[in-house]
Amino acid sequence: MTLFKELEGAASGTRVPLAKVLDALPFNEQGLIPVIAQDHMTKTVLMLAWMDRHAVERTLDEGLVCYFSRSRQTYWQKGETSGNVQELVEMTFDCDADAILISVAQTGPACHTNRPSCFYLRVEKDEVSVKS
Amino acid sequence: MTLFKELEGAASGTRVPLAKVLDALPFNEQGLIPVIAQDHMTKTVLMLAWMDRHAVERTLDEGLVCYFSRSRQTYWQKGETSGNVQELVEMTFDCDADAILISVAQTGPACHTNRPSCFYLRVEKDEVSVKS
Repeated sequence: MTLFKELEGAASGTRVPLAKVLDALPFNEQGLIPVIAQDHMTKTVLMLAWMDRHAVERTLDEGLVCYFSRSRQTYWQKGETSGNVQELVEMTFDCDADAILISVAQTGPACHTNRPSCFYLRVEKDEVSVKS
Repeated sequence: MTLFKELEGAASGTRVPLAKVLDALPFNEQGLIPVIAQDHMTKTVLMLAWMDRHAVERTLDEGLVCYFSRSRQTYWQKGETSGNVQELVEMTFDCDADAILISVAQTGPACHTNRPSCFYLRVEKDEVSVKS
């Protein structure tokens, strides 16, 4: 049984070493896992990006969120050019650990378009409307 | 220029036909796109799952969230066996449209482990703790 199957039935407060969890993370064929960034105060979902194991470890070590850019194939510390960094507040894995949720303190807008969240294209009936 | 690049600089309130957006969605090599489900009241992030184009259209048409199960390679209307359905409140696409955020009214727990959210494995220093 995998670690995550075992933990499904575990009581609240059960603890396992972080290293054991990192070793068991089911990265995809590109070595990546999707990461949802949520503002720790407003609970707004800011963006979805990707991390490999090194990016997960670096984010936990440094407390500043570092993704892996699929288009540039390199590490991307959020805000390294814009200054709009994300400080890590909390990291959680889901039941089968194929997704990560991070709660962050976001400096400035999260989106490269200068909107507060990347999710600004809202479906309204048979149209999509641009939000601010 | 792609539709989504064009919309980056669009004013708030700009509208485009939904069909045009669906035609332009950059599904991955499996024809899928990651979908974040967020509770519309509490703002809790409930789960991350995947949709293909049909699942996106079916969800919009029916108002009940339907994912595509990668492990079972079939459509999976959330709650079809458990009764823990998700009613769609709002759907938004992100800046490059390679992720979808849905706001939902969740009946019962979202997770198959009967926890309210799938994200229950919290990093605490060098350990991971099971949340209720």
